[in-house]
Amino acid sequence: MNIGFIGLGLMGKPMALHLARAGHALHVWARRAETLAPFRADADVMIHDSPSALAARAEVVITMVADAPDVVEVLFGTGGVVEGAAPGSLVVDMSTIAPAAARGIAARLAGHDLSFLDAPVSGGERGAIEASLTVMAGGPAEVFARAEPLLRLLGRSVIHVGEVGAGQVAKACNQILTGVTVMAVAEALNFARCSGVDPCRVREALLGGFAYSRILENHGQRMLDRNFQPGFKAWMHQKDMGIVMDEAHRLGLPLPTAAATAQVFNALVGSGLGEEDSVAVLKLLEAFGGGRPVIP
Amino acid sequence: MNIGFIGLGLMGKPMALHLARAGHALHVWARRAETLAPFRADADVMIHDSPSALAARAEVVITMVADAPDVVEVLFGTGGVVEGAAPGSLVVDMSTIAPAAARGIAARLAGHDLSFLDAPVSGGERGAIEASLTVMAGGPAEVFARAEPLLRLLGRSVIHVGEVGAGQVAKACNQILTGVTVMAVAEALNFARCSGVDPCRVREALLGGFAYSRILENHGQRMLDRNFQPGFKAWMHQKDMGIVMDEAHRLGLPLPTAAATAQVFNALVGSGLGEEDSVAVLKLLEAFGGGRPVIP
Repeated sequence: MNIGFIGLGLMGKPMALHLARAGHALHVWARRAETLAPFRADADVMIHDSPSALAARAEVVITMVADAPDVVEVLFGTGGVVEGAAPGSLVVDMSTIAPAAARGIAARLAGHDLSFLDAPVSGGERGAIEASLTVMAGGPAEVFARAEPLLRLLGRSVIHVGEVGAGQVAKACNQILTGVTVMAVAEALNFARCSGVDPCRVREALLGGFAYSRILENHGQRMLDRNFQPGFKAWMHQKDMGIVMDEAHRLGLPLPTAAATAQVFNALVGSGLGEEDSVAVLKLLEAFGGGRPVIP
Repeated sequence: MNIGFIGLGLMGKPMALHLARAGHALHVWARRAETLAPFRADADVMIHDSPSALAARAEVVITMVADAPDVVEVLFGTGGVVEGAAPGSLVVDMSTIAPAAARGIAARLAGHDLSFLDAPVSGGERGAIEASLTVMAGGPAEVFARAEPLLRLLGRSVIHVGEVGAGQVAKACNQILTGVTVMAVAEALNFARCSGVDPCRVREALLGGFAYSRILENHGQRMLDRNFQPGFKAWMHQKDMGIVMDEAHRLGLPLPTAAATAQVFNALVGSGLGEEDSVAVLKLLEAFGGGRPVIP
């Protein structure tokens, strides 16, 4: 199948290459020439001058960009996907954007006779490289069925959550749970340290019970190792928590622990720690309590 | 061994019986006669008129009561344990109290030549009945070694976390993680529902990734089943979050998500839902968003 892929970043590049390795004809475009450099040597990858030129050759166009305005620009901007795509083509957006934005994009694409699936992922760069992502998809069942074989090349778990936007809702829920749990683990381990108790022993004691989470196991260990390398960059998690809080505002919905987490993620980015992993919230908490500031 | 057990509630009663079944001579006392009724038929259990009378016969006295003032009363009040206990005896407090309170009690007991171990538990009533509790112990290594064989009759995981108070610190960390995660799961599932997406599908999608926690698996399912039976009563979790926030205040330590959780647990108790499980926070969140109040 001819597949267009737009958004060849840390996540997108390995994802696009999985599709090419599976035998699909891969069409790429990027705003910056250096992004395309690794693809020029590959005879099986076709490089295009614009999203519209790419879309003219592809039955399916996948987008994996930073946020909703980027998706809108590559789809509907000058030289955008809708200018080139044949009627009946499919757009799969795997970026993390607001559910309402996904629904708006689906409606605009329908006006061009183009189908849409929102299919954000979790699992990070490692999941993208290992094709072990969790893919959360929203859209009509027949559209999901069309995209599913491609999505299964990228993720270990591919779930049709519901109608358009439902993939983004599931991703928002994922970011609530992972973000809040990172905070709770940082609070607990710092509480232990400030109380004069070895946080390693506390983590070991708690892993066997109801306090167990994958975040306590993995991210908790990284906090103890003082390994703040991403992983998942704090500014991206901050962006996602912004989506969550905007949706909560729109729905008139209180999210007390997610709100507290979003504020600390704001502080993380404002402290210049945005390029580190979100486990760096530990550093912010350590700046208080126990009387010894340790940032950065 | 002669073991005194004070605090024969939902947790304490099955714990005491595990000790008796293992062949230890069990000595009990309770403030209310009806608490002792189930023990009167048991020829192997000795019932006493006061904590001091109980302590006079026991090498080890275990307390499992509601909060620090209750521990202080049975140990140091009129007819208290210290009036009867032989020098060199051991007091093991398995209640959940403040770390600072545990350290104070240890110091007072040392003045009577009595040893002390703080050994709070997690795992709830079910863990007590099945002897599958996690026991988090704080005290000198030789005191822990003395108590360990008894504690292993009550819990599957018995961990010596550190010096006196360290068990309570670990328990506080456990209550931070379980409390905050219950809140995060309730927020995420309610966010999905208010977004028009099936929260069951969202939970399934998230269980396979970094959002996994035992709380999402167990308590998340109970929220979907609308099963608000304890489990662990909300007023007890509220009490424990109060201990956490008092300690945070004393240490000058910010706990943003634990603080948000403590406030919602206050609201839960204030709404008359204190006797339900803490998963009932879902009901509070549902009272907002989606425009349909559902309490109780």
